[in-house]
This record gives sequence, structure tokens and C-alpha cells, in this order.
Amino acid sequence: MKNILIIGAGKSSSFLIKYLLEKSDQENLHLTIADISIENANKLIKNHKNASTIIFDVFNEKQRTSEIKKATIVISMLPAKLHIEVAKDCIKFGKNLVTASYVSPEMKALNKQVKEKGLIFMNEIGVDPGLDHMSAMQIIDKIRNKGGKMLLFESFTGGLVAPESDTNLWNYKFTWNPRNVVLAGQGGAAKFTQESTYKYIPYHKLFRRTEFLNINDEKFEAYANRDSLKYRETYGLENIPTMYRGTIRRVGFSRAWNIFVQLGMTDDSYTIENSENMSYRDFVNLFLAYSPSDSVELKLRSYLKIDQDDIMWEKLLELDLFNPIKKIGIKNATPAKMLQKILEDSWTLQEKDKDMIVMQHLFGYEINGKKEQIESSLVVLGENQSYTAMSKTVGLPLAIATLKILKGQITKPGVQIPISKEVYEPILKELKSHGIEFIEKKVPYLGYNPNHVIG
Amino acid sequence: MKNILIIGAGKSSSFLIKYLLEKSDQENLHLTIADISIENANKLIKNHKNASTIIFDVFNEKQRTSEIKKATIVISMLPAKLHIEVAKDCIKFGKNLVTASYVSPEMKALNKQVKEKGLIFMNEIGVDPGLDHMSAMQIIDKIRNKGGKMLLFESFTGGLVAPESDTNLWNYKFTWNPRNVVLAGQGGAAKFTQESTYKYIPYHKLFRRTEFLNINDEKFEAYANRDSLKYRETYGLENIPTMYRGTIRRVGFSRAWNIFVQLGMTDDSYTIENSENMSYRDFVNLFLAYSPSDSVELKLRSYLKIDQDDIMWEKLLELDLFNPIKKIGIKNATPAKMLQKILEDSWTLQEKDKDMIVMQHLFGYEINGKKEQIESSLVVLGENQSYTAMSKTVGLPLAIATLKILKGQITKPGVQIPISKEVYEPILKELKSHGIEFIEKKVPYLGYNPNHVIG
Repeated sequence: MKNILIIGAGKSSSFLIKYLLEKSDQENLHLTIADISIENANKLIKNHKNASTIIFDVFNEKQRTSEIKKATIVISMLPAKLHIEVAKDCIKFGKNLVTASYVSPEMKALNKQVKEKGLIFMNEIGVDPGLDHMSAMQIIDKIRNKGGKMLLFESFTGGLVAPESDTNLWNYKFTWNPRNVVLAGQGGAAKFTQESTYKYIPYHKLFRRTEFLNINDEKFEAYANRDSLKYRETYGLENIPTMYRGTIRRVGFSRAWNIFVQLGMTDDSYTIENSENMSYRDFVNLFLAYSPSDSVELKLRSYLKIDQDDIMWEKLLELDLFNPIKKIGIKNATPAKMLQKILEDSWTLQEKDKDMIVMQHLFGYEINGKKEQIESSLVVLGENQSYTAMSKTVGLPLAIATLKILKGQITKPGVQIPISKEVYEPILKELKSHGIEFIEKKVPYLGYNPNHVIG
Repeated sequence: MKNILIIGAGKSSSFLIKYLLEKSDQENLHLTIADISIENANKLIKNHKNASTIIFDVFNEKQRTSEIKKATIVISMLPAKLHIEVAKDCIKFGKNLVTASYVSPEMKALNKQVKEKGLIFMNEIGVDPGLDHMSAMQIIDKIRNKGGKMLLFESFTGGLVAPESDTNLWNYKFTWNPRNVVLAGQGGAAKFTQESTYKYIPYHKLFRRTEFLNINDEKFEAYANRDSLKYRETYGLENIPTMYRGTIRRVGFSRAWNIFVQLGMTDDSYTIENSENMSYRDFVNLFLAYSPSDSVELKLRSYLKIDQDDIMWEKLLELDLFNPIKKIGIKNATPAKMLQKILEDSWTLQEKDKDMIVMQHLFGYEINGKKEQIESSLVVLGENQSYTAMSKTVGLPLAIATLKILKGQITKPGVQIPISKEVYEPILKELKSHGIEFIEKKVPYLGYNPNHVIG
């Protein structure tokens, strides 16, 4: 009996657990789902005979070491910063570890010890990071194996609401951590290269420098990630002229979101006195000039030069941003937290709402003196509020990787991410049978197309 | 013989030294000017018999303690973060200390020890901070002593170029540390209150939310300081409805400066690869969309919507911002450092250039059921490049305070700033005789006037 310890049973664990339970008889698996609250875990295992749940506190060293000792392999679904104690115990007791999180410097520092013990610590094997790495590396390796030289790599991912549940003017709902959406793009200028030129976009211009994409004949937009060059060396693209990574939204989202950025509402660096008792309207007024004879509405429109018949204005009204009665109700909140509260009123997924994951890679390359381009796109729809597209695209790569490590089909030791063929080929193959399939097509080579730029 | 140890003989020491030397026979003073380089110090003392210069390294503990031991009082003109070792030695050897710097948390923490030893550590006694505290407190105390209730306090300071040396379209030259000018306003939203309402301006809007001022019938503009409420409690203005502090510029400066902010050129948080070999034009292009068929000029104008006949555009041309030949020449520079380099080409004070300090306070108050307002303004012109208005307004308050401490006319012990009557009255009185005099006038009470707001 192989005991898989899954630490953390949040939103993204549904498909992970479902997949492993379906394989549990055949593969002789037992799942232990450990969470600080086991309600959700119990719902997910539905009394399955090959699974048990335990109330688990990662800071309880005795419990942590005891559970890790009993496990054959550990999947940590904890927030990234909480992995490290689990990782150290995994080294101590010789257990493999799988996570969907970015490799932290602390995790990276364990590489030598992990290798010495012959262990596999597989990270960044969710959707983004995860599926993006695997699907991109598969095509990049294919191009290189044929003798092609990479000229361009652009990669975009978005967690959106499915068309059938798309019921607001923003064409957006929170399908993931709302806080990350509010803070997206902060912490420094966005950086990328286009035709061998470095380009930088400060945060306050990020949502006005979007690019357009076509995915399945639909138009989307994307804003640049903080550091598009993060994986340049990892992917072996050191000298690539164009490298850009971005986040996908429905067209028009960014232009309206920019209003919040311009006002200063996404700032998370200071708290507002008496935030609890402020109305939504008071909150907006914090960022506008003092002028008691003018309305908050007119001050905002005049400040940001928004025409009264601009759809952006309707978007603000839809959020009830100027409501003088509705209270924020959060003590010592930052502007970002106050904004999040207002958005959650409107953008929370409803019981029957479905989400959608979209991803697109563009690969430009030169082969036999000819320039070619491949466009590879993925759309995954969620089934319902628990079995979301996000949970599917995060959980299935994790689950498949875990099983392959257990069965000795992934063998290279070390702290790693899924960029080697040994890892991505079998996983991508199996994901296809679950409906996670990229549509690949050859398109004319455009290079970086300046017509895609706004602003 | 009283020995005054002056540590640091930079730009702002000329008037300080001049004043003390003029008093040295009468007051029986000897000055020891200690600096890492004594060239400037030697120029300033001109072989005066009551002064000597020494090469001094504040990190050389032996030398530092030995010089402080020999002194009767110490004036530290070092950068703020270097005061602390000097301060600790002053406590050890029982010496009074005078600085023009903001009280750091480390300095503040010495208060108990300083008081126990009966010492005076007088800080923030330059121009801003310094003269602003003294001149504001004098009027605030006067209003309160008459039974008035403070309703409004606005305070503005600017270091500018004198009208006769004002020779560029920006009406600005660097009369102080250029780096502080480039980074001004960064590090969080500007915060102030107007008519009991908190207001916040994010950095990227700071230079579009200026206020207008009239000083000696000339129009100026001001942008808000980071934290206008910093001295609210210190000044005893806890419940004041309107409190705003700002930095003065000539009208039109901020609107043009905003271009640099919008582009991201004032960012000091990351370095640019190959900055050394970049032309000014390359630098600008870092922040613009890739588009080889369009000029850098047109891309910038289109991005920031600048009309070709807008004076802002002429201001950029005057800086030679689009020059493809001139190189930045600084390795691993941040955007802010690269911008500073370009500005220094144009904005460095020339040999015969004169500077100017302008300051204005507005005090609104209610007395006997009537609302009144006082406007208090100061303009000080520099004499030449060494005897600047900045040096005068920093150095004279420092020098006068030092002498008054030496003569036992300022007696209250502790780590302090010049906000008590015992300190500010005699200093302000003596400053008048040196031409540093506020013009005070009663004006109609306006409260916070919304017509002053732009944007």
C-alpha cells in the first residue's frame, strides 16, 4: 500500500484527489488528506475506502514529522512560504515531494541534499507555473531537435469566467485568490524583450500597454507579467530576441482596471484610518480632490477624463462604487483590501458559475533559412464551483506526476520543475485523455508585431 | 576658549562657518572643521586665526572620540545616517550636539540618556526642517495664546534658482542634492487632510495634483509631501481640519516632470543592463513600445498624448532627451540615475548662478467667533555658488543655535527640535538681522480652497 500524504485540501485539490482516488484500487494507493479544517477534505473523498482525513497543523512538529514518516510520497498544497518545513522533513525521512508552487530560494537551497538522498522534489507542476512549462518546452524542444533557432517566445495564461457564466460588464469574476488579482503587477516595472530591445513598463502604465490575442477566433487582451525573462535561462532561450509573458483578460478589462490603479486603490502599503465605517463612496473620495460642492462622481470623471457615455463608467456603476450606504466593514484595511471587498460583492463565483482557463504560446523560429511560427492554444472549462478548470489544470498535472514518481517513471533526483522530456511527455499525453489538449497550428511568422500594441 | 567641532564641510557649511568666525573673537571661539577632504573647509576658513581644519573619518573611532573629547560642542553636518556614532560619543563625553537632520529613531532612542546627562541634542535646525518649524510655531503659539483655535495649517518650501539665473524652460536648476529631486515623492502615497477629510495621492498622480501659491505677487505651484501629518502631534495640531505640506516649484514644472514619472524614468528599484553604453535616446526608448518604423519622439508623444506645440515638448527637447550620440556612461545604473545624469547636463548651477529659497505658511484659525487667516512668506536669495540661499538658511539657524547653547541661553536638555519659544524666538529675531525675515499678512479666511486644485 502506497500512502500519499496530501497537505492542504483547498480549492485546487478537488481534481487532484478525484484522480488519485480513481486510481487507488488499481495502483494500491491510500490517501491521507491533512488540513487545518477537514470539512472540505471530507466532501472531496466522499467516504472513499482508500482515503482518510486528518486535522493537521503544519507548525505542529510532532504531528508533521509523524505523518511525513508514514507517507510514501508527499504532496504539499500549502501556500508557498509554508512548504519549507515539510521539505526539510521529507529530506530527513527520505520522501519525495510534489508542489505546484514557485521554487523559493529556500527550496532551491535544498537541491544538494535532495540529490544526495536520491529524492525528487517536483515543484511548479500546476497550471501556471506547471502546464505552461510543460507545453512550452515540448514545442521548444521539438523546434530545436529539428535544428530550428528560437526567435520569439510569448506565453499567456488567464483564469477567467466561462462564457456561459459571463454575466457582468467586466467579463470577469474571481476564479482564484482575489487578493492576487487586486495586487497583480505590483512590486516593480514589468520587464521583457522585443526584437532584442529591453522594455520596461511601470505599474501605473501596465494596464494601458496590453497586447491583443486571438484564441479560437475570439479576441483577448493580456498585460505583461512582472518578469517575462524569469525562465529565459531555464528554457535555454538566453539569446532569444523576443520574450514576453502575460496574463489574459477579456478585452476592455484592463482599460477599466486602470481606473483603480490611477486612483491609488490597489495600494497595499498603508492602512486607512476608520476604514471599517467608511462607505464605498467615502473610499472613492479618499483619492479625489477636496471639493464639497462637487459630486464624487464628477470629481472622478473629471480627474481621469472619463466621458459619461464611456463603457468604463458603466463598469464602475455596476460595482456600486459610489454607494453612500454600503460599508467596507474591515478594520485598518489597506486601499487594496477595501477595493477587494467592493469587488467581491460583484465578482464572486456563484454556485452554478463555471470558470475557464485559457493559455496561448507563440513560438517564432528560423529553420533552413525560413522563419516560421507556431501558435499553441488551450481552453479548459470548469464543471462547477468545486470541479473548476483551475482545479483541473492545477490538480491533474500534480496527480499524474505524483503517480509517475511513485511508479518510478520519473527518476531524475533533485529540486526541479517539469521542463525535461522525461517529465512533460508522459504527463501531457495523459492530460489529453482528460480534455486538457493544446491546439497547435502553424501561422505566418510575424515577429513581434507592433500593431498589437496599445498606447 | 570654546572649541566648536564641525564635522562635515559640504555645500551647506559656508554661512555656518562664516557666522561663527565673525563671532569668534568676541565670543572666544575656536572652530575645528573636520572633513574627509579638507579642501573645501580650507577655502571657507581662509586662514582665519580662530579656525583649523583636519582630515577626519567618522568611522575612525580613535580619531572621532579624541576630537569629540576636545570639543566644547559638536555640530554634525554629516548625512543623517552617520550622526549616531557621533551622538553616542557626545553622550559619553558630555558634549552638546547640533544637527540639521531629521531625528532618526536611533537618535530619538538616546533621549533618556541625553536628559540624564543634562545635555542638549538639537536637531532639525536647518531650513526644512528647521526654519519651517520655528517660523510656524511662532505664529501657531501666538494664535493659541490669544485664544485662537487652529483650523488650517499649510506649509510650503522650495529650493529654486533665483530669477536672474533662471535661464531654462523648466525654471529649475539643482540647488541641492539632485538625487533627492529625482526621487522626490516616492515610497508611498502622499497623505494629508483637508476640512477633516483624509486625502491620498499615489506617486504617479502626485505631479498632477499640485496647488497654486502666491508669494510676493508671483505665482508658484507645490506638490504634496509624502506625509503632511508628520508634525501634527508635535505642533499640537491633533484635531486641525486641514493640514498640508508641500514642495514649491515654478508653475509648469510638475506637469512636465510628470512625463518622467509616467514613463517610469524615476524608478530607482532596478538596474538597466548595459546602461553605460546607452544613448539618451536609447534610454527613452526603454519605456516605449517596440515599433521600429516609428520614431522615439512620435512614440512618446502618442503614448503620453503630448501635442507638438505643447511647451512640455519643448522642455524635453531642451534637455536633449532624444540625442542618439550622448552616452549615459554609468554602469548598472537605475532609471533614476540615468535620468539624473541627463538632467545634470542641463540643470547644474553655473559659477555665477544664484539660488533662492521660498517658504510660505498659511494659518487659518477661529478667534472670538471669527475666522481669520495669516499668510507668512519668506524669500531668500543666494549670493553666489558657495554662499547660497540654501547654505544661508541651513547654516545660520545652526550657527545661532550653537552659540546660544554655548552661552547658556538655550537650556532645556534632551533630544529635541526647535519648536519651543525659548529656542525659536531669539533665533528668529537674530535671523532677521541677516535678512531672513518672514513677511506676515492677514488675509481673508478661505479654508481649504478647492479652486486651488488641479486635476
